[in-house]
Amino acid sequence: MPPPIDQTPAWRALAAHASATRQRSLRELFAADPQRFDALSFRCGDLLLDLSRQRIDGETLRLLIDLAEAADVAGWRERMLRGEHVNVTEDRAVLHTALRLPEDKSLAVDGTDVVKDVHRELRRMAEMVDAIRGGVWRGASGERFRQIIAIGIGGSDLGPRMVVDALAPYRQDGLDIHFVSNVDGADISRALAVCDPAATLVIVASKTFTTQETMTNAETARDWLKKQLGKDGAEAGAWTRHFVGISANPQIPGKFGIPPERVLQFWDWVGGRYSLWSAIGLPIALSIGMPRFRELLAGAHAMDEHFATAPLQRNLPVLMALAGIWNINFLGFKALAVLPYDQGLSKLASYLQQADMESNGKGVDRWGRSVGYATGPVVFGEPGTNGQHAFYQLLHQGPQPIPADFIVPLGSHYRLDRHHDILLANAFAQAEALMKGRTRAEAEAELLQDGMAPEKAAMLAPQKAFPGNRPSTTILLPRLDPYHLGMLIALYEHKIFVQGTIWGINSFDQWGVELGKQLAKPILEELTRPDAKHAHDGATSAMIAIARGAPRLT
Amino acid sequence: MPPPIDQTPAWRALAAHASATRQRSLRELFAADPQRFDALSFRCGDLLLDLSRQRIDGETLRLLIDLAEAADVAGWRERMLRGEHVNVTEDRAVLHTALRLPEDKSLAVDGTDVVKDVHRELRRMAEMVDAIRGGVWRGASGERFRQIIAIGIGGSDLGPRMVVDALAPYRQDGLDIHFVSNVDGADISRALAVCDPAATLVIVASKTFTTQETMTNAETARDWLKKQLGKDGAEAGAWTRHFVGISANPQIPGKFGIPPERVLQFWDWVGGRYSLWSAIGLPIALSIGMPRFRELLAGAHAMDEHFATAPLQRNLPVLMALAGIWNINFLGFKALAVLPYDQGLSKLASYLQQADMESNGKGVDRWGRSVGYATGPVVFGEPGTNGQHAFYQLLHQGPQPIPADFIVPLGSHYRLDRHHDILLANAFAQAEALMKGRTRAEAEAELLQDGMAPEKAAMLAPQKAFPGNRPSTTILLPRLDPYHLGMLIALYEHKIFVQGTIWGINSFDQWGVELGKQLAKPILEELTRPDAKHAHDGATSAMIAIARGAPRLT
Repeated sequence: MPPPIDQTPAWRALAAHASATRQRSLRELFAADPQRFDALSFRCGDLLLDLSRQRIDGETLRLLIDLAEAADVAGWRERMLRGEHVNVTEDRAVLHTALRLPEDKSLAVDGTDVVKDVHRELRRMAEMVDAIRGGVWRGASGERFRQIIAIGIGGSDLGPRMVVDALAPYRQDGLDIHFVSNVDGADISRALAVCDPAATLVIVASKTFTTQETMTNAETARDWLKKQLGKDGAEAGAWTRHFVGISANPQIPGKFGIPPERVLQFWDWVGGRYSLWSAIGLPIALSIGMPRFRELLAGAHAMDEHFATAPLQRNLPVLMALAGIWNINFLGFKALAVLPYDQGLSKLASYLQQADMESNGKGVDRWGRSVGYATGPVVFGEPGTNGQHAFYQLLHQGPQPIPADFIVPLGSHYRLDRHHDILLANAFAQAEALMKGRTRAEAEAELLQDGMAPEKAAMLAPQKAFPGNRPSTTILLPRLDPYHLGMLIALYEHKIFVQGTIWGINSFDQWGVELGKQLAKPILEELTRPDAKHAHDGATSAMIAIARGAPRLT
Repeated sequence: MPPPIDQTPAWRALAAHASATRQRSLRELFAADPQRFDALSFRCGDLLLDLSRQRIDGETLRLLIDLAEAADVAGWRERMLRGEHVNVTEDRAVLHTALRLPEDKSLAVDGTDVVKDVHRELRRMAEMVDAIRGGVWRGASGERFRQIIAIGIGGSDLGPRMVVDALAPYRQDGLDIHFVSNVDGADISRALAVCDPAATLVIVASKTFTTQETMTNAETARDWLKKQLGKDGAEAGAWTRHFVGISANPQIPGKFGIPPERVLQFWDWVGGRYSLWSAIGLPIALSIGMPRFRELLAGAHAMDEHFATAPLQRNLPVLMALAGIWNINFLGFKALAVLPYDQGLSKLASYLQQADMESNGKGVDRWGRSVGYATGPVVFGEPGTNGQHAFYQLLHQGPQPIPADFIVPLGSHYRLDRHHDILLANAFAQAEALMKGRTRAEAEAELLQDGMAPEKAAMLAPQKAFPGNRPSTTILLPRLDPYHLGMLIALYEHKIFVQGTIWGINSFDQWGVELGKQLAKPILEELTRPDAKHAHDGATSAMIAIARGAPRLT
């Protein structure tokens, strides 16, 4: 077992370097080095990652690369990509990258060529998409499907939901897709209320096909279809024609009533939050068509290739991860604002909350030791310009810097140049403002210049001063198309893996979701059976008693 | 000028108390005191605020109340409510509470009875809602309005957007409402694409009516209407019949072309992020009808009355604020997860991000001094159960506790008891799990009991252990109706004010949004005029150059 990473010489060297450079200002760094942008921006194809507004220099990067080497990032990368069981606590391979491999590759995992399996299932997906969109597969009464209800939660929901929205300009007409995730009856009720049962296809996505929220929603959808189709005189099993199941456990959907030809499969070596590339992506393929879905895979694969082969010094996911480690562990900035300047990415922050916080929100390392350092940050965000009018106040003037990722597609799908110019100007200006700030003296001089009385200007200047020196990363893309969105998501996936590797944690399990599920069982019993009684703390007992006495339907 | 709050005896007493009780565990506190829930849960009407799962006891509360007194919370509350200019940097009163006062009250502000103004404008709003919904006011071609595009950003968007969604069960048929905020052309384009110009009413909401994003979207909507209506032979000014303006500057919409009878007004003493109660709430009133909108106001007013009159020791917003201060400043937990167990509140976290982070994300106090303590937290969240399958991993097992607010309506609008029972069981279980945790020994014993080999159980137990002792607040409501939603929002508003008061900051300005806006101007010029050139850091210059060379339309 290696020593904890914070007890390595590489970590100590970084700590010393952080101490020595604490006063460093980005304004000065830029002034001192006209080549700074060139030295600290990196490309993979036509995606650009700019780290020049991070509080780093060549020396910082060198020390961070040393840290990556101390944590054997290259070795773990290699082991993950070739299918070793890097998910040690669950004894599984981690191969979302295999979902993106071209058909002419092969990769043997535990004795099976997974690339063959992947492409067989992609072909089944393509056939299904064709059958649904082409009107070959129809509902019980012979109607074409016009509405999709996609039921799933967490990894079976956030990825498809985010991508379908991001790629709305590529949407093909004819199908409305409604995502349902929450067990709150409001979620499925609202979807059912706007769907026509005769023309509705329900996709149930769950790795285990036992997820309580998903199965409860699926049962309600099944009841609705049985009842509604029955009214039109459909035969007893007709509802099954309205269901698709997606699972890594392809026998289980059969028990629910979905015949095998309507079940798509993925595998236990695909983590839920890394699964949009698999059959879980069916809603994406239904929305934009299978060729575009394959472009999404191709973009992710291009990033995989880069990640696998580029030296650490020029490796985008590695460098992005290291900038994060620097902020979190050496500067103490433990949150991350994700700020896409594209309305299509309005669900990206929610998606990355799962990808990042469920992967790296852990306090115990692979060897069972409690970690003595911060791990995964709190991730939050909204698209710019919306966020500017919401929480950017705190980013600019809060006492504590919060690193930010600006994600900026340079081109737009919409013929509104004025809008897009303003959007880009805002993206660049916000990063500039965070970095540059404005001193009290500068604020006061501006106020005086605007004609304000000296006394008032002196009073107001501290309020209008900005500390600046706040780090940010900018990612430039030519446009938000399937290929570049694939690259972008894969960039974050690998960044998260590299950070987890440095922290020594297993980014691919999620034991932290178990206890709450376990404790919900006895409470559910108490809420539904008057005789049930279990031991709890006083607050839990009191709430159960209050809920028992309260009207459910209001 | 008072001493900074962290140099008062009350602050020092709390710091000493925090030190002395650092090892305190919630499990033990509950075991030691069977009355803990009763002692630490508080009611305002039928809304219950439970603080028993915060790491506090009677002594902590007493010291926190001392702190509130040291910061003169009662005095500032009084000054705010009676209309003094507590927004000192902008020299304005802060009177969102006046928007909720019943008609028989009066409140003179700077010599005017604002209650009269408020109710006059509410009546104008009611007439407008009646005219639109009743088909008296119609589009240029005589069609009834069926679609609303509500354009605004920040405070002119987040509140109405959140409330319209939360109160969807109260929605009256006949009008579809589309919110547009982002200057990204995608946002307005997507709305226009699904609207019929002849039946579309555009609401433009902006306190100043000069907000760049909002006016750019409004101009695009105007162009669209002019062009589309012109095709049907409508006369030149017909488009104005399709517009409503809402502004605190009611002359300006006239310049845009909106006649005075279609302009609703609010006032400079209403902060943008506290404005949903004013004419800014028009989309809410159009959605649920004016009587329901008045219930929303009544609920908020009930909370205002409680806040104004209840002793600090039993005052919900004050106590909720103090629990936050304890977590942020004395335990060092600087983020806040907002976890509503109601799908209708899926936009609550976004709303509270603005309400909280724009109000209290500040590093300078009222007197211009840089603060030496943490202020507003990073606020984030998603509805349970969705969040459970996304970021709760970090809440349960991350190295650092993140306090959480559980918001739980006990009743549902939907006839799906099973769903609602599961939802409630999960809400209660998550709070229990965060508090209780599971020790390594308990985890190991459970694994052995399930038949796992001892060696494997020993290996896995640390991964399945939960530190517990993680603080949370629970808010119980009978149901999510207009009245209780009003109470809930007002509870947060006043909590934010109390925290700002204790930190000595002005929660009602937002100077931090200015610099980015200012820096965007020269960049916009450079993006749109080939001859324009301004001085920037190397990264900003490089990005402008890249953007200039990149295709805009792709």
